[in-house]
Amino acid sequence: MAKIEKTAITPTREQNYPDWYQEVVKAADMAENSPVRGCMVIKPWGYAIWENMMRLMDELFKETGVKNAYFPLFIPLSYMEKEAQHVEGFAKECAVVTHHRLEPDGKGGLKPAGELAEPLIVRPTSETIIGESMARWTSSYRDLPILINQWANVVRWEMRTRMFLRTSEFLWQEGHTAHATEQEAIERTMRMLDVYTKFVEEYLAMPVIRGRKTPSERFPGAEDTTCIEAMMQDKRALQAGTSHFLGQNFAKGSGIKFQTEEGQEAYAWTTSWGSSTRMIGGMIMVHSDDDGLVLPPRIAPAHVVILPIFKKGEDRSILENAIDLKNALEAKLFHGQKIRVELDDRDIGGARGWEWVKKGVPVRIELGPRDIEKNCVSMARRDQPSSKKASMNREAFIGEIPAILENIQESIFNRAILYRKENTFQMDDKKKFYNLFEKASGYHNGAFVMAHWCGSDKCEEMIKKDLSVTIRCIPFDSPAETGVCIYCGSASSRRVLFAKAY
Amino acid sequence: MAKIEKTAITPTREQNYPDWYQEVVKAADMAENSPVRGCMVIKPWGYAIWENMMRLMDELFKETGVKNAYFPLFIPLSYMEKEAQHVEGFAKECAVVTHHRLEPDGKGGLKPAGELAEPLIVRPTSETIIGESMARWTSSYRDLPILINQWANVVRWEMRTRMFLRTSEFLWQEGHTAHATEQEAIERTMRMLDVYTKFVEEYLAMPVIRGRKTPSERFPGAEDTTCIEAMMQDKRALQAGTSHFLGQNFAKGSGIKFQTEEGQEAYAWTTSWGSSTRMIGGMIMVHSDDDGLVLPPRIAPAHVVILPIFKKGEDRSILENAIDLKNALEAKLFHGQKIRVELDDRDIGGARGWEWVKKGVPVRIELGPRDIEKNCVSMARRDQPSSKKASMNREAFIGEIPAILENIQESIFNRAILYRKENTFQMDDKKKFYNLFEKASGYHNGAFVMAHWCGSDKCEEMIKKDLSVTIRCIPFDSPAETGVCIYCGSASSRRVLFAKAY
Repeated sequence: MAKIEKTAITPTREQNYPDWYQEVVKAADMAENSPVRGCMVIKPWGYAIWENMMRLMDELFKETGVKNAYFPLFIPLSYMEKEAQHVEGFAKECAVVTHHRLEPDGKGGLKPAGELAEPLIVRPTSETIIGESMARWTSSYRDLPILINQWANVVRWEMRTRMFLRTSEFLWQEGHTAHATEQEAIERTMRMLDVYTKFVEEYLAMPVIRGRKTPSERFPGAEDTTCIEAMMQDKRALQAGTSHFLGQNFAKGSGIKFQTEEGQEAYAWTTSWGSSTRMIGGMIMVHSDDDGLVLPPRIAPAHVVILPIFKKGEDRSILENAIDLKNALEAKLFHGQKIRVELDDRDIGGARGWEWVKKGVPVRIELGPRDIEKNCVSMARRDQPSSKKASMNREAFIGEIPAILENIQESIFNRAILYRKENTFQMDDKKKFYNLFEKASGYHNGAFVMAHWCGSDKCEEMIKKDLSVTIRCIPFDSPAETGVCIYCGSASSRRVLFAKAY
Repeated sequence: MAKIEKTAITPTREQNYPDWYQEVVKAADMAENSPVRGCMVIKPWGYAIWENMMRLMDELFKETGVKNAYFPLFIPLSYMEKEAQHVEGFAKECAVVTHHRLEPDGKGGLKPAGELAEPLIVRPTSETIIGESMARWTSSYRDLPILINQWANVVRWEMRTRMFLRTSEFLWQEGHTAHATEQEAIERTMRMLDVYTKFVEEYLAMPVIRGRKTPSERFPGAEDTTCIEAMMQDKRALQAGTSHFLGQNFAKGSGIKFQTEEGQEAYAWTTSWGSSTRMIGGMIMVHSDDDGLVLPPRIAPAHVVILPIFKKGEDRSILENAIDLKNALEAKLFHGQKIRVELDDRDIGGARGWEWVKKGVPVRIELGPRDIEKNCVSMARRDQPSSKKASMNREAFIGEIPAILENIQESIFNRAILYRKENTFQMDDKKKFYNLFEKASGYHNGAFVMAHWCGSDKCEEMIKKDLSVTIRCIPFDSPAETGVCIYCGSASSRRVLFAKAY
């Protein structure tokens, strides 16, 4: 592998974190900005990661009885208006279809024509349109629960966009359920948060804090919004999944009614829960380093890349040997899946190895004439410095590859836990709290702070205004504890998580 | 199973084919019309079929080196205008986004606001937007070929819609490739048509005729459009997949240029190929009968449904026995996939069995106390009359289930081949040709006719005007043969396929 003289990514995390992020995405060839306002192109390497994520999450959803379906892209304006808070929450950022054809504009071009009687909104989320179907499907308690998920694109018009993190169009899944009782809907809300927690921690190797949003941060129209929050390497928080208990708000708006076992008419209780390609942005920011992307093995499009070292006149036999190694590795399983191996036989020098470093492949194998002679492979792990290589007996490597991948998965998870721990503070003093988020502290870009909050919107708002710091969630595992609000000094019964947010 | 006194679907195919189709979709609980103009809701049973189709097609695409990616939903109007024939082909049926937010309309409602400088078209297909990316990705011959596919939703505004067959929004895959040479692009066009042929014939059990479109039926902007055409049970033709050789038309429009190995600048040669949820409509119309949906086993969401017959006081033991049977079946493989089994333990009488008939599950098993006593199962196959049941030894059934499913797959394919053969005619006389498609003949709704055509747009157009019959394709396996055009009598060198089309 080429000698390391500088980092593969410029700028480094330390120098300019936001630019480092864009460069990691670009260097890994995952995605690029499109000239279409606010939209991105997800390139094959980025999309392959999303495909793995979809497949794995889909399995977890189905294990809980959820089935997939598909609902219209367009929502009539009148549907959105059925739930007042909901439409208000999305009105400022939606794509509106007003015409259904084009006609000559008289200047050699085309202009919109065929104006629609009612404008259509490109779905920013589908509670209202799915609610309309659920209302038709529900007449008796026997029709409940309804447990639906859809994989889809949604549009929320954004003025400032960043690849994966915030784009006008993004890909996501949105689950929607309807239940006969409040209790059952609340349990479903929590169950799906559990699924997200499991997926994000065990597959994406991102430790999260589970909790509920404050009223001001709730999903528009929800009674309760629960979420999982992860710390990025700039110490900001990113929400990696969210599950909402909607009470009867949307059921009343859409008319999801049923006859109870006792013969009374009642409104259903609904939930919704979503996660998106934004998780990819989170995964990048949690694990990657100054040499580029670092992928958790469980969602990596390739687990291992083999790089045969060619010398003139020997090409053929080395390539054959590399193919044998590929086949041997592909016969092994990692978490029930075949080991995924890339064999890169381009003869382009050191750039080749670096490409795979930047793409984040967990294990890189160099295979030269000397390695073959000694029945060895030269292995580099992406969770370790790029210069570090270990020579391993070939059969031992083949035998241990599942364990090596498992070990990488664990090591990056533990590293992220440690990083979060080192940057999480418990604070009780307002002045210290304010100082922490100011330039001098070294934490002005972010930190997780557990502090008391009295529960008032006003204190929350003032802190946001002063510091751009918000309450990310009221953690479920924050123990009852007597204290005083970090802002106003009023009584508080538990700490909440403050941070700067993506 | 309930005695059959009438067909489960009203009207029958004979009575009213279009209404029969809608009823089959509804009775199988696959989909429903949405109140959103021209859009449909794909319900879990319909979507599970699409999921199987996506998974299987995706594997076939990837085997040819294609990778998935994702491109923006919105296409700026100016991009569409880059290829004149293309924009003309889609201008009459596209959804146009003109605004990016909503604001109060002063009457208590909301109205579109934030007008866009340039209208955005909701993609009807993505040649132009993907071409724009390919232009950025291509600088040397080494960057080619580019082999991309995307699974996405597209919108073509339709005035008259029919579930799965024609809806304003539909789900599809669209492949787009760019090549250094014309020959390679032509080979790719044919290779993907081969993939569609394999998928539709071997998985959907629909026999197809492969050929190329006449110039008037080509994709807007293509040099050559190839297709596969299947006969429905009303003897009309449905196009089940299409693969286009685009020449350099889109490459010139989008600027997909590269430096050749010899150092010259050249435009790439591109292809595109697509298939959609429309295939589901075709599959329904080819195989289903007057009792509802008939599913090819290879894409059925459930291969087997077990219906335990309860008698008072024995419920528990029969259910346990049914669960054992389910487990035993699920341990078997069919085409590399676990056998998919539904166990329906609802105690609702005869309606239960009929539900599964109408859903098209290939094999239904009744399991009553007598069956258990005799170590038997009572089996009904969906490709045979609903009243026909066979008692089979339980272990023999478990052992033979993969073969039974394979046999059903073959039997419905062969039935469709036979049906097409019986309704395909070779004709050389204009009067007979015209008579065939008139009411008295019994074929006025449709038939496949192989007849000579001189190659003129005008003859094609006149036949379409007179009979609503079009040239579906110029079949590849139509041998060179001297003849005269069925319309004008001019010389012709091969027969083409005439039919009424969906």
